[in-house]
Amino acid sequence: MARWPLLWAQRWKAATWLGLSSRGGSASTAGPDMDDVLRRTVAAVPPYEMREKPALQEASSREFVQFYRGLGAAERPLFLTKLAADYGTDHGLVSELYGRVREVQSRDLGTLLQAEDRLRYSLTPRYKFLISHICRLEEGVKFIVDLRADILQFLQNKTADSPQLREMNGILKTLLSDWFSIGFLNLERITWQSSCDLLQKISEYEAVHPVRNWADIKRRVGPYRRCYVFTHNAMPREPLIVLHVALTDNISNNIQAIVRKDPSLETTEDVNKITTAIFYSISSSQRGLQGVELGTYLIKRVVKELQVEFPHMSQFSSLSPIPDFTKWLRGTLSFKIKEGKSNQIFTELEYKELQDIIEGPVLEKLQHLLSNNEWVKSDKLVRILETPLMRLCAWYLYGEKHRGGALDPVANFHLQNGAVIWRINWLADTSPRGLSSSFGIMANYRYFLEDANRNSVQYLRTRQIEASKQILSLVAQCQTISKL
Amino acid sequence: MARWPLLWAQRWKAATWLGLSSRGGSASTAGPDMDDVLRRTVAAVPPYEMREKPALQEASSREFVQFYRGLGAAERPLFLTKLAADYGTDHGLVSELYGRVREVQSRDLGTLLQAEDRLRYSLTPRYKFLISHICRLEEGVKFIVDLRADILQFLQNKTADSPQLREMNGILKTLLSDWFSIGFLNLERITWQSSCDLLQKISEYEAVHPVRNWADIKRRVGPYRRCYVFTHNAMPREPLIVLHVALTDNISNNIQAIVRKDPSLETTEDVNKITTAIFYSISSSQRGLQGVELGTYLIKRVVKELQVEFPHMSQFSSLSPIPDFTKWLRGTLSFKIKEGKSNQIFTELEYKELQDIIEGPVLEKLQHLLSNNEWVKSDKLVRILETPLMRLCAWYLYGEKHRGGALDPVANFHLQNGAVIWRINWLADTSPRGLSSSFGIMANYRYFLEDANRNSVQYLRTRQIEASKQILSLVAQCQTISKL
Amino acid sequence: MARWPLLWAQRWKAATWLGLSSRGGSASTAGPDMDDVLRRTVAAVPPYEMREKPALQEASSREFVQFYRGLGAAERPLFLTKLAADYGTDHGLVSELYGRVREVQSRDLGTLLQAEDRLRYSLTPRYKFLISHICRLEEGVKFIVDLRADILQFLQNKTADSPQLREMNGILKTLLSDWFSIGFLNLERITWQSSCDLLQKISEYEAVHPVRNWADIKRRVGPYRRCYVFTHNAMPREPLIVLHVALTDNISNNIQAIVRKDPSLETTEDVNKITTAIFYSISSSQRGLQGVELGTYLIKRVVKELQVEFPHMSQFSSLSPIPDFTKWLRGTLSFKIKEGKSNQIFTELEYKELQDIIEGPVLEKLQHLLSNNEWVKSDKLVRILETPLMRLCAWYLYGEKHRGGALDPVANFHLQNGAVIWRINWLADTSPRGLSSSFGIMANYRYFLEDANRNSVQYLRTRQIEASKQILSLVAQCQTISKL
Amino acid sequence: MARWPLLWAQRWKAATWLGLSSRGGSASTAGPDMDDVLRRTVAAVPPYEMREKPALQEASSREFVQFYRGLGAAERPLFLTKLAADYGTDHGLVSELYGRVREVQSRDLGTLLQAEDRLRYSLTPRYKFLISHICRLEEGVKFIVDLRADILQFLQNKTADSPQLREMNGILKTLLSDWFSIGFLNLERITWQSSCDLLQKISEYEAVHPVRNWADIKRRVGPYRRCYVFTHNAMPREPLIVLHVALTDNISNNIQAIVRKDPSLETTEDVNKITTAIFYSISSSQRGLQGVELGTYLIKRVVKELQVEFPHMSQFSSLSPIPDFTKWLRGTLSFKIKEGKSNQIFTELEYKELQDIIEGPVLEKLQHLLSNNEWVKSDKLVRILETPLMRLCAWYLYGEKHRGGALDPVANFHLQNGAVIWRINWLADTSPRGLSSSFGIMANYRYFLEDANRNSVQYLRTRQIEASKQILSLVAQCQTISKL
Repeated sequence: MARWPLLWAQRWKAATWLGLSSRGGSASTAGPDMDDVLRRTVAAVPPYEMREKPALQEASSREFVQFYRGLGAAERPLFLTKLAADYGTDHGLVSELYGRVREVQSRDLGTLLQAEDRLRYSLTPRYKFLISHICRLEEGVKFIVDLRADILQFLQNKTADSPQLREMNGILKTLLSDWFSIGFLNLERITWQSSCDLLQKISEYEAVHPVRNWADIKRRVGPYRRCYVFTHNAMPREPLIVLHVALTDNISNNIQAIVRKDPSLETTEDVNKITTAIFYSISSSQRGLQGVELGTYLIKRVVKELQVEFPHMSQFSSLSPIPDFTKWLRGTLSFKIKEGKSNQIFTELEYKELQDIIEGPVLEKLQHLLSNNEWVKSDKLVRILETPLMRLCAWYLYGEKHRGGALDPVANFHLQNGAVIWRINWLADTSPRGLSSSFGIMANYRYFLEDANRNSVQYLRTRQIEASKQILSLVAQCQTISKL
Repeated sequence: MARWPLLWAQRWKAATWLGLSSRGGSASTAGPDMDDVLRRTVAAVPPYEMREKPALQEASSREFVQFYRGLGAAERPLFLTKLAADYGTDHGLVSELYGRVREVQSRDLGTLLQAEDRLRYSLTPRYKFLISHICRLEEGVKFIVDLRADILQFLQNKTADSPQLREMNGILKTLLSDWFSIGFLNLERITWQSSCDLLQKISEYEAVHPVRNWADIKRRVGPYRRCYVFTHNAMPREPLIVLHVALTDNISNNIQAIVRKDPSLETTEDVNKITTAIFYSISSSQRGLQGVELGTYLIKRVVKELQVEFPHMSQFSSLSPIPDFTKWLRGTLSFKIKEGKSNQIFTELEYKELQDIIEGPVLEKLQHLLSNNEWVKSDKLVRILETPLMRLCAWYLYGEKHRGGALDPVANFHLQNGAVIWRINWLADTSPRGLSSSFGIMANYRYFLEDANRNSVQYLRTRQIEASKQILSLVAQCQTISKL
Repeated sequence: MARWPLLWAQRWKAATWLGLSSRGGSASTAGPDMDDVLRRTVAAVPPYEMREKPALQEASSREFVQFYRGLGAAERPLFLTKLAADYGTDHGLVSELYGRVREVQSRDLGTLLQAEDRLRYSLTPRYKFLISHICRLEEGVKFIVDLRADILQFLQNKTADSPQLREMNGILKTLLSDWFSIGFLNLERITWQSSCDLLQKISEYEAVHPVRNWADIKRRVGPYRRCYVFTHNAMPREPLIVLHVALTDNISNNIQAIVRKDPSLETTEDVNKITTAIFYSISSSQRGLQGVELGTYLIKRVVKELQVEFPHMSQFSSLSPIPDFTKWLRGTLSFKIKEGKSNQIFTELEYKELQDIIEGPVLEKLQHLLSNNEWVKSDKLVRILETPLMRLCAWYLYGEKHRGGALDPVANFHLQNGAVIWRINWLADTSPRGLSSSFGIMANYRYFLEDANRNSVQYLRTRQIEASKQILSLVAQCQTISKL
Repeated sequence: MARWPLLWAQRWKAATWLGLSSRGGSASTAGPDMDDVLRRTVAAVPPYEMREKPALQEASSREFVQFYRGLGAAERPLFLTKLAADYGTDHGLVSELYGRVREVQSRDLGTLLQAEDRLRYSLTPRYKFLISHICRLEEGVKFIVDLRADILQFLQNKTADSPQLREMNGILKTLLSDWFSIGFLNLERITWQSSCDLLQKISEYEAVHPVRNWADIKRRVGPYRRCYVFTHNAMPREPLIVLHVALTDNISNNIQAIVRKDPSLETTEDVNKITTAIFYSISSSQRGLQGVELGTYLIKRVVKELQVEFPHMSQFSSLSPIPDFTKWLRGTLSFKIKEGKSNQIFTELEYKELQDIIEGPVLEKLQHLLSNNEWVKSDKLVRILETPLMRLCAWYLYGEKHRGGALDPVANFHLQNGAVIWRINWLADTSPRGLSSSFGIMANYRYFLEDANRNSVQYLRTRQIEASKQILSLVAQCQTISKL
């Protein structure tokens, strides 16, 4: 054991804690100043013995932040790739330390645990210390969140892609998951008396049912509506995730009634008419927090808030979009056309009815018809298509899978939270967006509070989906007809 | 790579994520309910693939908390020992995963990094997941802080002591260091208009110069005084660490003048008279945060606040106790007596003067004299002792070492922060406490802002101490005379 | 009508609005600077036509305030007497304007109303404009409140007494009644989380049951207690009146149980045990607001607050002192002794029992006995005295009158508010203060919410007192026996 | 003196304090329920002796408020006319009490002052007691403000007009002036972080330079701008008056540069560039507070705020509209045409230049030209008209009078506050509104802080106007040429 300090001291000398020199040159072609900056600003890993000591890296952390902010769009991917490559985990040290673990395995437990702890420490990538220092700066946490947003974008559009950058993304995700853990979040209710900058941000972030103007947003925080956000102390005045709720007396089947209908805004709420909470929009507002679970916790907290405010509230449900149903159906149609199995989509009767109003090959024509939103103007088509589209949609939500879970990401989210696929609604969102993404169909995912925990666990473990009789019956019909 | 999921799935099945069964029996003699509770409440480690999924463990976490709170003083050590022993790291898995790392070392980098990440994940003790769940409960963070306070106490008074418990202490310390990182702390200034419960807590926590009554505390938040605390959102209404500052026109040499003298409390501050900030007390108030660095950051933040409020403030210094100087001197006297080297403590002249007023063997008699605080009533003794005690004290602060750094913990704290040992002051704290701990001597550690960072780094790396001429000269005298 | 402006313009010229000269010398003996200051600082009355124009008198108002604050205790009465005498109403102008009213009486209504409005304006004393200007200064309202406190004290201790000063007191009272009208007051609940300066003031103001220390005040804002204050925006951080409430399950009969008994302070309130609110202390904290009705409104507001917090609360009652019962009884005893009518105080049986334990002439001895609080230590005396003292006390509260209403000021206050004399309680306040003022007896004034308004009106109009059967029966006994 | 109480008691009995009967029938034709409601809800005047007692009129005041709110637009004027007529001052009582004043005039001063005080009290119209009760209700003050707004509208559009209603308007104005006295107002700075409902109201109230959308209002509270309001505690969330300020480096001569130009909104203010505050809009937002002076005090307070924030700020000026210059000029032109004195408007040279581009009779044609805003498109006309219009405008502001003061209301307001007519600016407001009201000319009224008080007094007393050399020179030219 006596050798540890020595070993560390050597590395320490070699590196220097203050990052006056880097741990090794980079072979990349980047301009010299990037390397210089990294060498100057990325702190060396403190020796194990001093891992808890305060390290005053304010100046160099600030330099890093300013340098990064000054970089152009083309330079950032390069810079982050270098950071990830040159300042990651020291694989040799990991190997060496694992050797120690084996060596002491047969000795006393204390020695083993200490060796393991050093191994654990050695697995911390060096850039993680830099990140910890940055989070101590004013607006430092926001910087890290935005940095991860950049990385996600680079990886997505392939402007940068290296195993180390992907690793850094994972490290950041874990770190942000810790920082934005539920115990450190504040729940805030947003009203028309909330501050303008918050309401403006909430309007801009609203991704599900876009806010067109200030009258729109005033409605969404007015009577019979609730709007909640999570905020974090280290990012003041920044909503992290926003949940919009409508207070009704039944499970809503139409979104326009919620976001557009103009009840006199001055209406006072009649508590006796409120039995149901409809979650009609949930939007993350920080791209850099992708994969950090916030929505589940926000829904749970809001349910508690609502139960305090409305002790007799008895129904909780979402009214949710089905973002890719249209896309999926088009794919399925193409496939069926190619395979020549048009009879596997519609019943004979349906097919006949369609033939009556569509000239030419039914599936092909239909494919074209459904490629824009004109069909909704024909009452006849609307009537004929309702049954088959609803049936196929039920199947899409219940039967189509991705990694064992529901393919539809919204369904997957609510099922993970313990909800039940409760109902799908025809002509529920007749906005262009709603028609384009799911032929206007929307889904209710219903939360039975006493069952939610059990459902969640079951879904996460066995991937078994809970659904209502309406859904199951539609699914059964679909299976009979469509052989999907 | 395809084998990973399988491997995890097996363990997963065996263990169950919901903690329905534990990972192995404990041989301890505890009642069966402890084991039962742990089995029920400590979540299984989620498979690597699901490590970011929300896990709804609220009920079982709450059960754990309530069970622990209900345990008696005798049962808690046992319970925590079991938790640490039975729900720690899976050493076999670590070994297995390291094997994989070696296996893939020669393959592509991506594969290696992923293997390392699994190894990293496998080094997370299972109880850490429980702790993460608890921190999501209301007052959960406070529970964890208090839990660590318990562990520290058990380890200290030996009511429990196992390698695993010591490991858990370390894991908790690291975790709390993350949670209470500076980016997540709020600086609050405390005044007489702050809330009563906060002021009461601050009075109770004050360890350095105890608050006797409400007039005392009113002074310490009144004119020419500042009081700052760090708080954390997850622990509302709980000061974590408290810093008291006096605003003066010179570097104070007496603590009673600060905490007792009664300037008319209604005095309005005259900004022109304020050139100096004296940090006269800094107290941690959460035992469970021991080792989590807060003091350094608090001082830095407060300096910034003061610079904004008083742009012309030019001197920053502590007025600090020297907790164990008396104890050290007694030990040194005993040693010299035993060794018969009394001439190594005093100069001949000093020795003679002492002989004149002390009958019998000087050192022995002196040892007795200094064992209570009566000597301070003799003007003669006070005069004679000043020079040798000041000299010895300077040496004690500058020359006595522990692990390479200053033995005195207060000196070590300020030197780490980049301060300079500036001055020691005779009769600076004539309270019984002050006399008992350091013969009434107090130290000023002065902060030269432009040098602090450099000093800090230098001290942390080379252990070299910066001190003023007064100190260095006293130290030199002491070295000549005392051969210490 | 055309003559008005002219008339005013002349006065205007003579006086000058800016107070550059006063409206006439004062014959008083005060130093010339007082006259000078008044001449400079008391604004002239603006002409009727310009009565709403902004007048910028900040500098001179500030001078007045500073001058007054600088005056010694002996000078202030003189100064205020001069202000009231020399800057009051212009009687000549009133007379002149009344003449106009008569002149135009037979003309059109508009002319008459305008003449009356000028008369109304002329009845405004000139110093009232000064006061209006002062209230615009920072802390100006507080200055006026304190100024009236001074006047009240001067009038009371006769250091100053003139008809004009008494008039000024009345003018100020009316003005303050307007300013501190209920629509402009804020109700605040005080808890242990309220600010220290507020709690300190509340402790100091508590006149009914003095607060001994911080543990005392912590109890009075802790569980099963409520403390409410009115504050006013123009006097921030100043409680105007304080109401202490105990939350119980019955109508309390003992004050020590409320203010001293130490239930574990950490006790959480059990809402189900709370059926009753006991108002056990109400204290004005601004002497200058004497006669400005605040208590009645505070009780009404607090009742509403409590009904919201505890919808099932069913009983509201005070537990009140009887400040002068002892004094009244002593007077009555003296009178009966002088008149030789000792048999009119006690029944024969009571008299005999007293004779048994008192040697010598009963009434005289008793008078002496009751002059200190020793009697309470004799169980026998306590037993014997209970019946007659309770009977006499009931009479004192119900039968003794001042200007038609109850002589006892506390009874008068609660009766005005619509309460009922509900119960008097033996040994309810055994503190020295309680024994000295009312032989330890305390009264419950109970509020039946549905009757309070009617009772209040009835009492204010007809002086008829509502009382419970207990009280009425005691009163009847007393009337039979004592011929009071 | 002894007769007073009796006299009052009789009236008291006759009337009854609780308003159970009214003081006399009304001859008006209104439905019986109005009379009934008034009889029930308007409290009787309390006897002089009980004038300070709490009167619990909550229920009847509330009834009055609800009844009034329920009245239609046609009924309200009638109802208020009845209230003013039937529940005003008791002229007979005034007469009687004045008789007493005469009677006691020769007696001691105390008696006289008391008689006067009763006279004063008798001059309080009975409805004033109702108003006092209403202001104690929640939102009661707002009700009274809105009631006065109604009265002002009725008087203006003649839907109601009686001497008593006009008297009531005056009484309310005085009362509201007391309530909204500066000592009771809160100054709030409005920013983009202020609450949405406040910002929406401020947008709607902006009368001077209308706010078109949310980007507009965001600019007006953004960098280099300040927006302040007064609020009153009894009317939460209601701005009473709004002042918009631009922070610049010179005295602005163009309003579009302030309200429309789009500097990047994110610009951080450079304090060193800010030397001047331009008050470019001040709008009252409560019609019911007409005549209650708020603007003067708001400007004074804001100047103080700005001096604290920008210690080196050296120039304070308005940039103000000239609402009726166009109207006045048209009138003047018509008159000159009628009188045939066209040579009194323009110099010969000017006239010639105009002739060159205008065919036909110059003045007549010009009158037509200026009746719309097309002239501004002709550079030539713009050039030719500048000199004569600026000259005439200077005269209009300086020379045209109303009741001795400036005819232009904006000029009158700023002159009252002590400002100087500093500069008029050509093409300063080229919006349709600006062209229509003043041919695009705007005025700067400049505040020299050290002179403002003296100027204000001088203007209020002697009506003498302070103006800059630019203005005086233009005025002199105008006098020479135009004989105005």
